Amino acid sequence: MRTLLCATLTAIAALALAPSQAAAPAGAHPPESELEHSFRDGISAERIGGFLKDLTEHPNFPGSAYAKRDAEYVLEHFRSFGWDAKIETFSVLFPRPIVRSVELLGPKPFTAKLHEPAIPGDATSAQQDEQLESYFIYSPDGEVTAPIIYVNFGLREDYAELERQGISVKGAIVLIRYGRLWRGGKVELAAEHGAIGALIYSDPREDGYFQGPTYPEGSWRHPDAVQRGSVLYGLYPGDPLTPFVGATAPAKRLPIKEAITIAAIPCLPLSYADAEPLFRALAGPTAPEGWRGALPLTYRIGPSTAPVHLRVAFRWDSTVLYDVIARLKGDTYPDEWVIRGNHRDGWVYGAQDPHSAHSAMLEEARNLGQLYRAGWRPKRTIVYASWDAEEEGTLGSTEWMEAHFDELARKGVLYLNSDVTMTGLVQMSGSPSLEAFARDASASVTDPATGLTTLARAELAAVVLGSRATPTSPIAPSADHGVRVSIDPPGYGSDHHAFVARSGVPTLNLSFFDDSFGGSYHSIYDDYAWYTRFNDPGFLYGRATAQLIGTAILGFADADLLPLEFTGTAHEIERELGGLKHLYAAYRGRQQRDETLLDSGAYRALAPDRVPKIPPRGAPAAELDFRSLEAAVARIGVSAAHFSNALAGTRLTGATRAATRRANAALLATERAFLRQGGLPGRPYYQNELYSPGRLWDTVPFPAIGDAILDGDLARAAAEVPRAAHTLDAIAAAIDAAADAVRAPIPPIPR
Amino acid sequence: MRTLLCATLTAIAALALAPSQAAAPAGAHPPESELEHSFRDGISAERIGGFLKDLTEHPNFPGSAYAKRDAEYVLEHFRSFGWDAKIETFSVLFPRPIVRSVELLGPKPFTAKLHEPAIPGDATSAQQDEQLESYFIYSPDGEVTAPIIYVNFGLREDYAELERQGISVKGAIVLIRYGRLWRGGKVELAAEHGAIGALIYSDPREDGYFQGPTYPEGSWRHPDAVQRGSVLYGLYPGDPLTPFVGATAPAKRLPIKEAITIAAIPCLPLSYADAEPLFRALAGPTAPEGWRGALPLTYRIGPSTAPVHLRVAFRWDSTVLYDVIARLKGDTYPDEWVIRGNHRDGWVYGAQDPHSAHSAMLEEARNLGQLYRAGWRPKRTIVYASWDAEEEGTLGSTEWMEAHFDELARKGVLYLNSDVTMTGLVQMSGSPSLEAFARDASASVTDPATGLTTLARAELAAVVLGSRATPTSPIAPSADHGVRVSIDPPGYGSDHHAFVARSGVPTLNLSFFDDSFGGSYHSIYDDYAWYTRFNDPGFLYGRATAQLIGTAILGFADADLLPLEFTGTAHEIERELGGLKHLYAAYRGRQQRDETLLDSGAYRALAPDRVPKIPPRGAPAAELDFRSLEAAVARIGVSAAHFSNALAGTRLTGATRAATRRANAALLATERAFLRQGGLPGRPYYQNELYSPGRLWDTVPFPAIGDAILDGDLARAAAEVPRAAHTLDAIAAAIDAAADAVRAPIPPIPR
Repeated sequence: MRTLLCATLTAIAALALAPSQAAAPAGAHPPESELEHSFRDGISAERIGGFLKDLTEHPNFPGSAYAKRDAEYVLEHFRSFGWDAKIETFSVLFPRPIVRSVELLGPKPFTAKLHEPAIPGDATSAQQDEQLESYFIYSPDGEVTAPIIYVNFGLREDYAELERQGISVKGAIVLIRYGRLWRGGKVELAAEHGAIGALIYSDPREDGYFQGPTYPEGSWRHPDAVQRGSVLYGLYPGDPLTPFVGATAPAKRLPIKEAITIAAIPCLPLSYADAEPLFRALAGPTAPEGWRGALPLTYRIGPSTAPVHLRVAFRWDSTVLYDVIARLKGDTYPDEWVIRGNHRDGWVYGAQDPHSAHSAMLEEARNLGQLYRAGWRPKRTIVYASWDAEEEGTLGSTEWMEAHFDELARKGVLYLNSDVTMTGLVQMSGSPSLEAFARDASASVTDPATGLTTLARAELAAVVLGSRATPTSPIAPSADHGVRVSIDPPGYGSDHHAFVARSGVPTLNLSFFDDSFGGSYHSIYDDYAWYTRFNDPGFLYGRATAQLIGTAILGFADADLLPLEFTGTAHEIERELGGLKHLYAAYRGRQQRDETLLDSGAYRALAPDRVPKIPPRGAPAAELDFRSLEAAVARIGVSAAHFSNALAGTRLTGATRAATRRANAALLATERAFLRQGGLPGRPYYQNELYSPGRLWDTVPFPAIGDAILDGDLARAAAEVPRAAHTLDAIAAAIDAAADAVRAPIPPIPR
Repeated sequence: MRTLLCATLTAIAALALAPSQAAAPAGAHPPESELEHSFRDGISAERIGGFLKDLTEHPNFPGSAYAKRDAEYVLEHFRSFGWDAKIETFSVLFPRPIVRSVELLGPKPFTAKLHEPAIPGDATSAQQDEQLESYFIYSPDGEVTAPIIYVNFGLREDYAELERQGISVKGAIVLIRYGRLWRGGKVELAAEHGAIGALIYSDPREDGYFQGPTYPEGSWRHPDAVQRGSVLYGLYPGDPLTPFVGATAPAKRLPIKEAITIAAIPCLPLSYADAEPLFRALAGPTAPEGWRGALPLTYRIGPSTAPVHLRVAFRWDSTVLYDVIARLKGDTYPDEWVIRGNHRDGWVYGAQDPHSAHSAMLEEARNLGQLYRAGWRPKRTIVYASWDAEEEGTLGSTEWMEAHFDELARKGVLYLNSDVTMTGLVQMSGSPSLEAFARDASASVTDPATGLTTLARAELAAVVLGSRATPTSPIAPSADHGVRVSIDPPGYGSDHHAFVARSGVPTLNLSFFDDSFGGSYHSIYDDYAWYTRFNDPGFLYGRATAQLIGTAILGFADADLLPLEFTGTAHEIERELGGLKHLYAAYRGRQQRDETLLDSGAYRALAPDRVPKIPPRGAPAAELDFRSLEAAVARIGVSAAHFSNALAGTRLTGATRAATRRANAALLATERAFLRQGGLPGRPYYQNELYSPGRLWDTVPFPAIGDAILDGDLARAAAEVPRAAHTLDAIAAAIDAAADAVRAPIPPIPR
């Protein structure tokens, strides 16, 4: 399919459709320069492959024997490229397992292997002694014996379905399939429903033979491959012991008992080969159709006929993290930082995750260094960060952000992140004020497969593929013409997390993505052998990633006026409000249905434990009133239009440095306006009114309000509405102030 | 889930909601009488179980050693019940296999077992010598060796997807999964696309462990169980050698070569255990997600790396069919026949299919005989038919209908069919003019599980389950209140087929259905042991079926004015027109998309065999104009309202027999008005403008027009529109005439 798609797109480009010819929107980065051309031409796929190979020959997880060596490799390379580089260390809680055991007891006993075998032809898979065990970091110690119950993806709606069927998970070990929700959220929900242990497995439907041939025949998950991962509970990211502050040597640390982000119940990840015998032990009702995966058996809910004995115990040690931070000093605005980061740690070898894009970052740095040596000086200071310990909960980036919080608040103008990159369509997510800028950057890079610009390919793919465009692709229909690739919300799954949560610095993620993702994720098979067979064999998309991100960095570093604009902001906030209304309507629909059935007597006649918990009939729930939010959204739309008009009338070049700084400060204030003082209710760490994750690290519109609705607490939701409206009003006011600042005539800068 | 549902519904009924209290619509059968009460009370579940056991101890397929004995059992029982009964025989083409073989060649050879093993505890499954082989009746002889290609369900859209991927099935053996389309349609489409052989298998997703525990642990399809079946091509039903005429001894027969309903290519059905090794031999692209079933492997399209050798050969003999026809003569309108039929033949033992409902029919007959002996005489003649050879293509009923065509056209007033019945929700399908009558009958019978009326249960199930109501249930939202169980179109899958096609007699199907259907269908395990464990252990729904259908028969036989009305007709025909518009819009949408991509050059740049066959750009397809149909539908709505008014003003009782006959003749003429003289284009056998099947025996709205659209022949479709409008106008005129006939004052009948 991929071959056909590429051929189709190439043909379209060659024969008929011109690449995007829309005028660059006001606020986009300046027309591409000779410098940018030169930068992109200098990017070498071969060197990217070399970096990737060097850094994946051995495991690169924090605390591995190679962690420090890798950091020094990166440090030395940055220095050799001409950068001012150093290593910043943090000391974080990093439990390693001592005991991992899952046994099915009873007449047909079974012990889970919890082991990924070496594969012929995959050299590093055989280096078994150095590999990290498959486990969930931040599971508590625990030993439990209980029947298992299958809870599908382990979402709120799955527990609601169990309740309708009169099945409780109290005192049980839940068997959860991966997908749809952060694994830490799955464990938290299981604990909230009374489960005493959790096993999360990769179902072959989402992540195995159902998707395609499995490793080593194909790229999809080997039956024994395990998705390791973190199960942090989403109250804050980073080191569980040092919320709000960098985990430096002198930092005050919480006792482990008070580290509320550590999961509540013991848990382990399983391969589908290990999960299958557990499924065969389940009795009870056949699971609803939507719950069934691709194992060759009848999915039943359980409980199991025999109990399962789950044991996990950890060495609760600290580990040193090595963030490599490199700078190219700006000559015009040296105290404004354009930061770009990518993590360096993998779960084991981490070829796709993170070295697909980490290697691109090194090649960008090499090439920027070349330009620097040739005399170019960026206007702003460029900061490149090779983060450690992203996988455990964005520890390296979070601790650095916290350690430099005050300076960052003064100096940060952009945090541009990448993580995994692949072949396929360009992906853009981040602050909506960067939509035009990101589109412009992607329009300046050539897609290796089709020869189109990466933006044109993404837009044509939306036309040609229609609904078959990948669901994660940032494609949204546009009012004015066919389709338009817009920017996605920033999300939370990588090192921009802490920046989005509370820094007030605009963020951007850029990468490529398609269905070549495959099934090596967080297993020992995410390595050089797998990557160079299935992901990006010639490192051509690694090259495109470096070209794309380097172009964006150059553009942002050298623009006098920061390339922010707000039509995307107005549109995205309106979309979030639509999402909130939808969430509330769905909640009310379910509630009214329950009330109808309660009135009819249907529920009362059943066992009391099957009666849904809905408010007593005498106290009808107050309807949420979103009018204050609607009014604020409308105001943001007006402000965004005013800003566009103001920008069209300004002179972009030739202002004084001070005047430009004032305008840029006003622009940046629009991003800081997203932050709510004091943070969200119950989660003070998270200040971003729009783009904080839900408490399960899920996607929740207006998370302060949305989480309250999801928790069934409408009174709390109602109390949050005016607070959110206040934030939106502040955003509108900040955009107005930015419009005033750019409207003012800006005298020439003396150079 | 079933237990919970039942409890819920009982609770609703007991505590809050009264059963349906809507006034009986005009035209419904008269208020229930003492006679009907007495009839229903006399139905015995135990005797139903006895009939079922007796007739499933040995195979009952045509030509089996027990076929004649079974017919005589039924004959003698009818006679013992006091009926005037006889056996009518027909001689039909009934090929039995001599050779059946599927071999995968190449390095990993495999020979399909094509064998269903005996199961401990299932006595008849061990009677292997007497069982009918698993095969497709009306496959041609053939021996082919070719690679296999997987074509999903083998639908038109599946071949379109293959074409988009540049894959041709020319010269291949296609591997098709069961579902979504009559198996004969699958074979026909495969042949039309150039395949030289076809294998149709039961995927565990639709029909195996994905649905629930498999036999003997649970009711779902055993891995080795095979769905036998007929693969007639849908040009006419019944004996392939005697279209239009009954297959009596003197009837002229076609040479086998000219029997155009015999399939075009050799084919065999497979179990999923036999299909799995064939799937493992497939190479080529991974199948699209919607194509993937529940086998534990990656579904690929193929072709296979090794060829498959398929051999089938048959003994092309004739077999005698035994239809048992029994009568209770009417005393007022003896020349009006109320016919009720159910087939007696199964594929092997046929406990669920057909003896679940055939046994109910015998118990109805016994009980009607009791009433007759006690002095009751039906006003109309009641004809009960125990059909033979339904499974092969409704041979017994079709040949009888054809043999008695002229008399039937004069005397038939109803054909009421049943086939499989189960536990669950009442199912009503047939002539839309019988909607009110059928609802009334179902409101007079008590649902064994809930104590509600069967109609109330179905309507409450729609409220409680919402969208989780079974897709095949006749539940449609109503404009005036919550939900309303309406009548479904008659369909084509049982012995009403030939009656609907061309007799002009109103038809009705009544039964119960839910997800207890299970997976014994057309295998040797559809037997007494399976049925009494999983289907209707206490025969309580067999009893409800007999009560429901007997009540309807009594009501129809004794009503002076036939209980037809036309608001359902108007609604259903409007729905069919909606379906036709939807079909056309979908066709045009695909075509316009193809045109757009063709214009863009995308297709032209690809290999010529991937360019979709769409009309040349210079000759845009004419748009179909449905206005004449819309006008006719509107006229039917007006006519139906006029009829309702006329009926409300008439006196239903006390007319002269002659006046009543005239009114009834006018009522019956509305059903005959559905027939188009000369039949549908290319299929003269099918005269019913609305309710003929598509040429693949699929559900196609306005089949003359709809089939033309599906074949991509818009000129033919356009030519058919005025013809269909003509039929609709005739229906409206017939309803008007019926209104006139019932409006006339009808003097008392002398009794």
